[in-house]
Amino acid sequence: MSVTAAQGFEAAGVAVGLKSTGNRDVAVVVNRGPLKVGAAVFTSNRAQANPIMWSKQIVQDGVVEAVVLNSGGANCFTGAFGFQTTHQTAEKAAELLGVSAGDIVVCSTGLIGVGGEDFRAKVLTGVEQGVAALSADGGEDASLAIMTTDSKPKRAVVQRDGWTVGGMAKGAGMLAPGLATMLVVITTDAVLTAEQADEALRAATTVTFDRLDSDGCMSTNDQVTLLASGASGITPDPTDFAAALREVSDNLAAQLQGDAEGASHDITIDVQHAETEADAVEVGRSVARNNLFKAAIFGNDPNWGRVLAAIGTTQAAFDPYDVDVYMNGVRVCTAGGPDRPREEVDLTPRATSLVIDLKVGAAEARIRTNDLTHDYVHENSAYAS
Amino acid sequence: MSVTAAQGFEAAGVAVGLKSTGNRDVAVVVNRGPLKVGAAVFTSNRAQANPIMWSKQIVQDGVVEAVVLNSGGANCFTGAFGFQTTHQTAEKAAELLGVSAGDIVVCSTGLIGVGGEDFRAKVLTGVEQGVAALSADGGEDASLAIMTTDSKPKRAVVQRDGWTVGGMAKGAGMLAPGLATMLVVITTDAVLTAEQADEALRAATTVTFDRLDSDGCMSTNDQVTLLASGASGITPDPTDFAAALREVSDNLAAQLQGDAEGASHDITIDVQHAETEADAVEVGRSVARNNLFKAAIFGNDPNWGRVLAAIGTTQAAFDPYDVDVYMNGVRVCTAGGPDRPREEVDLTPRATSLVIDLKVGAAEARIRTNDLTHDYVHENSAYAS
Repeated sequence: MSVTAAQGFEAAGVAVGLKSTGNRDVAVVVNRGPLKVGAAVFTSNRAQANPIMWSKQIVQDGVVEAVVLNSGGANCFTGAFGFQTTHQTAEKAAELLGVSAGDIVVCSTGLIGVGGEDFRAKVLTGVEQGVAALSADGGEDASLAIMTTDSKPKRAVVQRDGWTVGGMAKGAGMLAPGLATMLVVITTDAVLTAEQADEALRAATTVTFDRLDSDGCMSTNDQVTLLASGASGITPDPTDFAAALREVSDNLAAQLQGDAEGASHDITIDVQHAETEADAVEVGRSVARNNLFKAAIFGNDPNWGRVLAAIGTTQAAFDPYDVDVYMNGVRVCTAGGPDRPREEVDLTPRATSLVIDLKVGAAEARIRTNDLTHDYVHENSAYAS
Repeated sequence: MSVTAAQGFEAAGVAVGLKSTGNRDVAVVVNRGPLKVGAAVFTSNRAQANPIMWSKQIVQDGVVEAVVLNSGGANCFTGAFGFQTTHQTAEKAAELLGVSAGDIVVCSTGLIGVGGEDFRAKVLTGVEQGVAALSADGGEDASLAIMTTDSKPKRAVVQRDGWTVGGMAKGAGMLAPGLATMLVVITTDAVLTAEQADEALRAATTVTFDRLDSDGCMSTNDQVTLLASGASGITPDPTDFAAALREVSDNLAAQLQGDAEGASHDITIDVQHAETEADAVEVGRSVARNNLFKAAIFGNDPNWGRVLAAIGTTQAAFDPYDVDVYMNGVRVCTAGGPDRPREEVDLTPRATSLVIDLKVGAAEARIRTNDLTHDYVHENSAYAS
């Protein structure tokens, strides 16, 4: 059900030929209200696609009527023509829905540099067909239309007492902090103010999507959008809403990790006893981005030396010679020296746990990443072809 | 000839079983004087191997008699026993050479965590055999003994009017700024003060070894050592000496790049018209560490979008929508939009040129890197086995 699990939303996913496979490639998600609350967070990459530049302006007033998303082209670095395409996409949707173009968010994903005449024509056709196909059961189709190299759609729903939060996501590659080729739309029928929506979304993404660092590459197109319809008529306690939103976000982030391009291990890095949460995040990210560590995990090699070498490059507070490392529950390194024999660590399961105990404080953080595999190299050396 | 090309040096490389292949694994380089000038630069990783901690103290007074190097074990995170092993290595060499242990530099490379009784016994045997085998023709043997996953030894010699600079290096993987699993020894018979040696070495490494960023992983063991014997009796102009040292360093860095683990492309990233050299280096490194770009080059795919996405993550001064990108001489992107068709770029040669024109200033920098290949993943997933 994803984005149509909550009351007050309709969605559609249609196929207009942007994908060479003929699969669905344009999605439309519409908020039927009564509230039209919207919030979004965007990639922190300075190189930003046209839909990012557009949508940043749109969400500033906290009002969003609909989201149009396409796969099959990022519309990034496509110049003034590309920006006009995004603008026309919003105008077309607004006209068909009878609302203002200034309340239409646009998201694109695919290859950078794709956004010419053919792209524009197909996207506009997709808006027409998508609006015509809108349905309160359209969440599944929409989640299919945003897939790129994803092997399966990602959807999550959390139901509380009379209100619901649901969402869809696409990811696969280029997952990194500050978001990556990741598009997410989350809807709720809870009654929220625009300020509450914005605050809750930032709090949730900071500890979920922002801590998914599959390959360290930050995209130009990523966006997480939250829409609130108020259709349940229920105003949840802000803490309860924040928890539900975080749960949906965490569930979607785990699905993105589980379907990362070419990965054979889902690695959960738990950094414990850091002086600050920022330190814990820095240490976790440094390991998550270390190709030598990631290649070792692919080879089922509990190479803890590469973990210590990675954390040694950070500025976090700890003593490099007094750190403990656990792999899948086995303490392979203690106080900066070997502990249990590496043979005791079984790295054959896909789910992989790395625990780094910095022994200096009470802060902690979890970073999700993947291993570096032959399939990752293959998929990313062949993506454009 | 490498480290024995300059007058006043003897070297040896012997095999004592640290490598399972039976190849040479301990090298000794001795400065016979009359000067005993030494300088060194070390990894900036906070996790530092025992030989790094030892050698940092040794070079402080600018006097170095000899360098002992071993492959087959990094002696890193091996605790107090490991440090004692390094200390005993220096003591043994000093005793046999009739000098002070406080003038013996020690370098190790290999797997982190290796440095137990067996390692110690073999290294000490290697010192005995190495000192016994010292010869003015021993440079080649020494360069073989420091190899790990290197497919060939790296040596370079520059001869000037009556004086010489020569060196050897090992690298292969974990090449990154602040040095990496890279050991380098450079010798000269020029007459230098310790201060001159230190200054020239730092200047040379900053623009050569420090700008080789093969896989973004920084090692715990890396060290570049310069020894000066003064045996030529010639005191070169400091500018001339700096240029010769930079030439040897650049030559060795290029050889390290050319033999990086599993690489199929040697990528030279020239960042032009940056506001500052630091900006140029930051931009070049960001691209050099981008797995998506590196995998694309492996696939002979001139995916300039990934270049712009990588530089967009930096804080350097430039307009993301006014950057030109050239691949192997073809301008594939101008002013943040597509330029020449990607089909015009021939990425089949191993030597690959990427030029990024930031169009804001007069500073520039060159970063060397490699592509991300199946063989890289294979070698690094199997290294410990």
